[in-house]
Amino acid sequence: MLTLTFLGTSSGVPTKSRNVSGLALQTSLSKKWLLIDAGEATQHRLQHTGLSPHDMAVVCITHAHGDHCYGLPGLLASASMGKRTEPLTLIAPQNVLDWFGATLQLTDLHLSYEVILRDSNSVLEQPVELMDGVWVQAYALVHRVECYAYAFTVQHSSRKLNTTALQQVGLPAGRDWKALQYGQDIEFNGQILHSHDFVQNHTTQVKAVIAGDNAQPNVLAQACQNADVLVHEATYLQAVLDKVGPGPMHSSAKLVAEFAQSVDLPNLVLTHFSPRHHGEAGQAEILQEVKDYYGGTVFLADDFKRYRLSETGVLQEVNELTGQKKER
Amino acid sequence: MLTLTFLGTSSGVPTKSRNVSGLALQTSLSKKWLLIDAGEATQHRLQHTGLSPHDMAVVCITHAHGDHCYGLPGLLASASMGKRTEPLTLIAPQNVLDWFGATLQLTDLHLSYEVILRDSNSVLEQPVELMDGVWVQAYALVHRVECYAYAFTVQHSSRKLNTTALQQVGLPAGRDWKALQYGQDIEFNGQILHSHDFVQNHTTQVKAVIAGDNAQPNVLAQACQNADVLVHEATYLQAVLDKVGPGPMHSSAKLVAEFAQSVDLPNLVLTHFSPRHHGEAGQAEILQEVKDYYGGTVFLADDFKRYRLSETGVLQEVNELTGQKKER
Repeated sequence: MLTLTFLGTSSGVPTKSRNVSGLALQTSLSKKWLLIDAGEATQHRLQHTGLSPHDMAVVCITHAHGDHCYGLPGLLASASMGKRTEPLTLIAPQNVLDWFGATLQLTDLHLSYEVILRDSNSVLEQPVELMDGVWVQAYALVHRVECYAYAFTVQHSSRKLNTTALQQVGLPAGRDWKALQYGQDIEFNGQILHSHDFVQNHTTQVKAVIAGDNAQPNVLAQACQNADVLVHEATYLQAVLDKVGPGPMHSSAKLVAEFAQSVDLPNLVLTHFSPRHHGEAGQAEILQEVKDYYGGTVFLADDFKRYRLSETGVLQEVNELTGQKKER
Repeated sequence: MLTLTFLGTSSGVPTKSRNVSGLALQTSLSKKWLLIDAGEATQHRLQHTGLSPHDMAVVCITHAHGDHCYGLPGLLASASMGKRTEPLTLIAPQNVLDWFGATLQLTDLHLSYEVILRDSNSVLEQPVELMDGVWVQAYALVHRVECYAYAFTVQHSSRKLNTTALQQVGLPAGRDWKALQYGQDIEFNGQILHSHDFVQNHTTQVKAVIAGDNAQPNVLAQACQNADVLVHEATYLQAVLDKVGPGPMHSSAKLVAEFAQSVDLPNLVLTHFSPRHHGEAGQAEILQEVKDYYGGTVFLADDFKRYRLSETGVLQEVNELTGQKKER
C-alpha cells in the first residue's frame, strides 16, 4: 500500500556509509512517487533505487537546513536535462521556496517543466489531495527554524461484486457482471438489476507521518492519531543529548520512544542519526534505548533500506535494493 | 610541484561512474590545497581522497551553473560542523557570490570561520598571491553565463650553497654554512665572507590553467603563454557538437586539440564529458580525435584520477587513490 525507501539517514553531514536526509514514498495506486527532503546527493542515491525523477510527482521539504534541501536544485536540474515535462509540486517552508527561487535566478537554472510552489503553511493541519487517493497535511515541529512533519494518507477504494447473489439471480458471468461492478444498472429477464444491490465499495486507508527535525515528539500527538507509522529523527542517545544540551533542538531515541508508546503507535522508524552513532555498536545502543520505552514494531533506518506498509497496517522490511553500493 | 585530483568529470549531470565538476589542486609548498569548482557531492568525493576540507584554503568557481557550484554550501557547512576556524577565500563570479550569500541567509547557515569573498573580476588578468608562492589570474571564457579560467602559478625558491667554494676557503661545514645559506655574512680568519658570494637562489615555477565551460578555446591564448598544462572541457566529439549545434556553448575535443597545438602547449587534460561519451568506446573516440590534432601529452580525466606536474613541467598520472569507490 505504501513503500518507504530511505536515501539518507545521517544527521548534519554525510559519512562514507550514510547520506544526509532523503526519503522516497511510493503507493500502490500509481507509479508516481513522492520525495520527502532532498539532502545533497539525493539524486546520486536515486540512481541506485530504480526510482525515476520523471515519476517524482511531489517534493516535500521539512525545513531549510542544508542537510535537508541542498540536493533539491541539482535533482530538479537533472530531471530537466532528462527532458521532463510533467509539472512537479514543491511543498516547503517559505524560506526554502525563496531559496529555490533565488537559485533559479542566480544560477541560470531554466527547468523544462513547471514547479508548482506551495508554502507548507497552506497544508497546515488540513488535508489536501496531492494526487488521486493521496492526501497530505503538515504539522509544525519544534526546531531551530520553521520545520514540519508531513502526514500522508493513502486511500484505496475497490468495488467488490457479490457473485453469490448474482448466481442466485441466475445472471451469467460476463459483460453484465462488469457493468454492474462499475455502477451500471442492467435489465435481466424483464427485471432491473441495480448495481448498488450487488456491489460493495471497499475502502482501505493507511497513514504515515514523516517528521523533520524536532526537539519535542509530543507535538505530534494530533498528527499521529490513527497513524500506522511514524518516521522520526533520533539524532542522539539520551545520554548524549544530555551532554550536548538542548541547543541543536534534536530528539533522543528515548524521547521518541516514550512519545510513540504514549499514543499507542503501532510502527516506528528512526532515522537522522548523529555520525557518532553510525557504527554497529551505536545502532545497537539506539535500538536498546527505544525498546526500553516502546513496545511496538521499531526499525532503525539505513540508507537504501526499504519498508512496506500493508493495507492492514503491518510494516515490514523488504529486500534491500539490488545493485546499490553502500559506499559512495 | 603541483598535483591535480579530479573529483568529477561529467558534464551537466552525474552518472553512476562520474560526478559533476570538481578539481583539487595541491602544491609541494604546503598542505593547504585549492578547489576549482564544487559540483553537487564534491564533499562526498573528497571523503575518498585523503584531502581534508580543513586544509582547503581557496575555492575558485568558474561559473554559476549548478554542475559547477551546487556542492559549495554543503561542503562549507560540513567543514563548519567539523569546527574549522581557518578563513577560506572564495573566488567566483558575482552571481555565485550572491547565491552563496542568499544561501547563508535563507537556509540558516552560520559558518564557524570567515569566508573572504572575491569577485573573479578582481583577479582578471592580473596575478594575485593567494598564499605563499601560489598566484592566481582569471581569464574570461565564452559560455552562456559569465565564466572564467583560472591560471595558477606556483613558485618555489631554494637557496643552494656553493660547497666547493666554501671548502676552498677552508670554512668547516656546520653552523656557519647554514648562516651563509640563509643570508647572513660571517667572519672567518679575519675576513668577511658574504652570503651572496656563496649562495645561488634557485627559483622554479610551473603554471597550470584550469578552464570552466568554454565554446572558444582560442580565447585562452594569453592565459596559456608559458603554461605547463591546460585543463579544458571537451564535452563532445566534433561530430556530436555539429549535431547539437552551438546553443550549449561547449567545446569539442577537436577544437581544444587544435588550440593546444597552435600554442605549443606541452600538456593537456580533457574533462567534462557528456554522459554519451562516458563509456570505453566513447573515451577512445575522444582520445583519437585529440591525437589527430595535437602532438603533446594528453590525458582524459576520470573521477579520482590524479596527475602530478614536476618542476620541469612533466605531467604524469600517479596512482589512483586507494580505498575509493568508482560507483557512489
